[in-house]
Amino acid sequence: MRMKQWKEKIFDIVSRDDGDNRASRIFDLLIMTLIVLSVVSIVLESFEDLNARYRAVFSAFEAFTVAVFTVEYILRIWTADLLYPGEKHPRLKYIFSFLAIIDLLAILPFYLPFISADMRFLRMVRLLRLFRLFRVFKLGRYVDALQTIVQVIRTSASRLIISVVLCAFVMLFSAIIMYTVENPVQPEQFPNVIASLWWAICTLTTVGYGDVYPVTAVGRFFAALISLVGIGIIAIPTGIIAAGFTTAIDKGSEDTPDDPKPYCPYCGHRIKGD
Amino acid sequence: MRMKQWKEKIFDIVSRDDGDNRASRIFDLLIMTLIVLSVVSIVLESFEDLNARYRAVFSAFEAFTVAVFTVEYILRIWTADLLYPGEKHPRLKYIFSFLAIIDLLAILPFYLPFISADMRFLRMVRLLRLFRLFRVFKLGRYVDALQTIVQVIRTSASRLIISVVLCAFVMLFSAIIMYTVENPVQPEQFPNVIASLWWAICTLTTVGYGDVYPVTAVGRFFAALISLVGIGIIAIPTGIIAAGFTTAIDKGSEDTPDDPKPYCPYCGHRIKGD
Amino acid sequence: MRMKQWKEKIFDIVSRDDGDNRASRIFDLLIMTLIVLSVVSIVLESFEDLNARYRAVFSAFEAFTVAVFTVEYILRIWTADLLYPGEKHPRLKYIFSFLAIIDLLAILPFYLPFISADMRFLRMVRLLRLFRLFRVFKLGRYVDALQTIVQVIRTSASRLIISVVLCAFVMLFSAIIMYTVENPVQPEQFPNVIASLWWAICTLTTVGYGDVYPVTAVGRFFAALISLVGIGIIAIPTGIIAAGFTTAIDKGSEDTPDDPKPYCPYCGHRIKGD
Amino acid sequence: MRMKQWKEKIFDIVSRDDGDNRASRIFDLLIMTLIVLSVVSIVLESFEDLNARYRAVFSAFEAFTVAVFTVEYILRIWTADLLYPGEKHPRLKYIFSFLAIIDLLAILPFYLPFISADMRFLRMVRLLRLFRLFRVFKLGRYVDALQTIVQVIRTSASRLIISVVLCAFVMLFSAIIMYTVENPVQPEQFPNVIASLWWAICTLTTVGYGDVYPVTAVGRFFAALISLVGIGIIAIPTGIIAAGFTTAIDKGSEDTPDDPKPYCPYCGHRIKGD
Repeated sequence: MRMKQWKEKIFDIVSRDDGDNRASRIFDLLIMTLIVLSVVSIVLESFEDLNARYRAVFSAFEAFTVAVFTVEYILRIWTADLLYPGEKHPRLKYIFSFLAIIDLLAILPFYLPFISADMRFLRMVRLLRLFRLFRVFKLGRYVDALQTIVQVIRTSASRLIISVVLCAFVMLFSAIIMYTVENPVQPEQFPNVIASLWWAICTLTTVGYGDVYPVTAVGRFFAALISLVGIGIIAIPTGIIAAGFTTAIDKGSEDTPDDPKPYCPYCGHRIKGD
Repeated sequence: MRMKQWKEKIFDIVSRDDGDNRASRIFDLLIMTLIVLSVVSIVLESFEDLNARYRAVFSAFEAFTVAVFTVEYILRIWTADLLYPGEKHPRLKYIFSFLAIIDLLAILPFYLPFISADMRFLRMVRLLRLFRLFRVFKLGRYVDALQTIVQVIRTSASRLIISVVLCAFVMLFSAIIMYTVENPVQPEQFPNVIASLWWAICTLTTVGYGDVYPVTAVGRFFAALISLVGIGIIAIPTGIIAAGFTTAIDKGSEDTPDDPKPYCPYCGHRIKGD
Repeated sequence: MRMKQWKEKIFDIVSRDDGDNRASRIFDLLIMTLIVLSVVSIVLESFEDLNARYRAVFSAFEAFTVAVFTVEYILRIWTADLLYPGEKHPRLKYIFSFLAIIDLLAILPFYLPFISADMRFLRMVRLLRLFRLFRVFKLGRYVDALQTIVQVIRTSASRLIISVVLCAFVMLFSAIIMYTVENPVQPEQFPNVIASLWWAICTLTTVGYGDVYPVTAVGRFFAALISLVGIGIIAIPTGIIAAGFTTAIDKGSEDTPDDPKPYCPYCGHRIKGD
Repeated sequence: MRMKQWKEKIFDIVSRDDGDNRASRIFDLLIMTLIVLSVVSIVLESFEDLNARYRAVFSAFEAFTVAVFTVEYILRIWTADLLYPGEKHPRLKYIFSFLAIIDLLAILPFYLPFISADMRFLRMVRLLRLFRLFRVFKLGRYVDALQTIVQVIRTSASRLIISVVLCAFVMLFSAIIMYTVENPVQPEQFPNVIASLWWAICTLTTVGYGDVYPVTAVGRFFAALISLVGIGIIAIPTGIIAAGFTTAIDKGSEDTPDDPKPYCPYCGHRIKGD
């Protein structure tokens, strides 16, 4: 009995999103601080002189962070049966949930010596901790906003994929034209189609670093055409996403006022009454 | 009788989009693999050292690809009468359909010695095979998505053309102003209006390579004005396309629930009944 | 009597947009060709060697163009009373109409020796002829498309002006910050606020030539902030214009199907009938 | 009695936005001119030679501007009881209103010797006067336009914040990948993650100065991916804002015609009447 009360208390602190519980809030703040400091430390370690001088500090902080995240991970698995009450295998269900996999990936590499030896890979894995912030952001109205964005992207997915395919076509086509036209004049800037593709992507996304650009008249003519097409290429996904949001917001605002009214908003007839 | 059964079997494999038929699926996968490898081989051939070493491999693969595509093209024409059952000249109709012309263009140049001798032209023609992917993509929901994009562009066509014309006006105007202002100071960067037009397009599309830019005070003043106008120039087609998608999606979602219901969705009166 | 018939014939050729009249069509085509060739000749004249060799040809063509446009201008004034039948001063009204002023500006400078001596000014004035194309474009569905664009911009005018003002604020603010931060380190790139403004405009419009950019840590921090704000700055006018088109298209499509139907589309009641 | 008449007269001149009062108009014009000249003088002072030669003129003008703005500020506080008639502490309420705080910030630093000694800080503070223009712009339809923009941004706030967070994730991730890949090859361009972040922001906002760019094949591959993601990153806030404006305009145009009509706009039945 005492054990169960303890479990419920820990569950309230670790997993509840209510925000009423003060201990839960402090815990959330601690985890958030650790995530942010962990990312800051990745950034700071990249400065050679800082890394040389404070290597011990960075290592100790990393060990502390991993320890806290490991304890949190174990507690979450332990209390998973309170999260999914009716479920048969609540712990297995929790372990394979999206957020739990992120949690595991954020600590696991530290325990695998053959991975933790490779600094470069470890750095990227540690950045995964950023996604743990979503746990903390799962509060109030940000959930709705994030859900709307995800829903809009999901609804528009097939349209967006097609527009990315169209975009890839245009890029490959531009790259091959440009390679054909510019290679004889600038063999160092356009040595092959892959290098030419780098130019095409820089141009169509309108980034335009200026490290590679056409110099022949024919090349410039095609580059101008491709830049103009680039405007359209960018306009299509922007248009799709804008339309998705307009529709999503419209639906949201239509649902609310229509439901509670028993009268036709247009002619005053009682709905289903007559 | 036996011949007809064979024909139907081949038709099912080559032309059906159902996806139930296993042989048809394998065939689709084979064609898709050949298209992708064909494009990859265009890219790889552009690397001088690879081309020198594996020229024989590239040639053999190209011959194989063309052979498969030719057999496919002939089979499709042969079974065209099953595709258009009631038609008088089903084969002619098929040959002049959009997708069949693409198919022909993707193999024909290989059989014309005077074209296949010109490597550069051949390369671009071979890229046309990318469009053959649309055949394979003609499955499931991607058809709807592509149709929506095409429909939106078609509906907005006259608006988009006008905005392109406006854009061309602004570009030519900018180019002439910039040539007038910058030519005396940078005769090498702005030697004539065409070169100045290159600058104008780079600026208005916001690519901005940085190979040509104004250095005089007056030139920079006009360039700043033109950049700001550029935001508007890009905003207009983006706005048109966004509006097109919003309207298209709205219509789509309105059409479905309204049609099958004989009742007013707002007050439950029978429509046209009273 | 005979004079009047002549006048009507000329009016039909010069001013009617019907497109039924064959002579009117040929006349439109002639004017359009002259406009396009006139612009092409501005471009070609800017090539030094072409200008040196064919100066006589360019001058003769310019004289011919101005002569044709002058005759056209006079004929349009002469037939203005047929364009505005009930008007008291039809010719004065025509002379001060927008398109007629453009027409006059496109030929007048040629007759003023003190202007025509200045090649640079003359070049820009001649470009005004491009706007004469609008006369010819005033055909078919392009009128609607252009009207929609103009209407959308006019409806959104006050919103667009405010967003331009906001944009100017942000630019000036960015320029002053950047001047303060970067001037001590790069006095040649950021010598004063005006030069810094050039950088701000290049950055906020995302053109980014790369001729001027911050090098200090503080400068890069502010530049990064300003670039991110730049996304928003561009998003606002794009959003305004997109919303304008969505509303304009919605209105247009609502007006058409509603008018001819005597029944309520929602509940089948006869409109105004009961 | 006489005092009160004076007060009302001054209140009419200083605070009314009616525009009927001629003295009020002249006063508005004077303030606007002073604001604009004040900003122009910030810009001109940054030119070293101008500053050296006309330092006395700039100082005198600054003193005059501050004097006028101080008098205006005092008069506004004095007449605040006419602005908020029923209020208990009208002057305190006015002093802590947004526009009054801006007013104070625009003059206060001049009276604080320890601040006015620091030229750089003073320059930015003086720029705050630009916001005083909003007072003058608070006329006619611009109020509505500004309110619509503010309302749209406020309504979309949570969505915009989430999209900025997503954007920050992508930027940090890109920076860490690019640092890992490019640092061994270009240690001077990518010395640490912060420098790499500068590249990431330049690329994702599509500014692309061209001072830092990847040169390795792997780096270019990731940079290409990131540029493409950049299109989406920009499309999301643009889409959100566009949808916000569409909804805001729709609501605006729906509210007006619906309210005053007691009849169903679709079938003419009296609403709530049956």
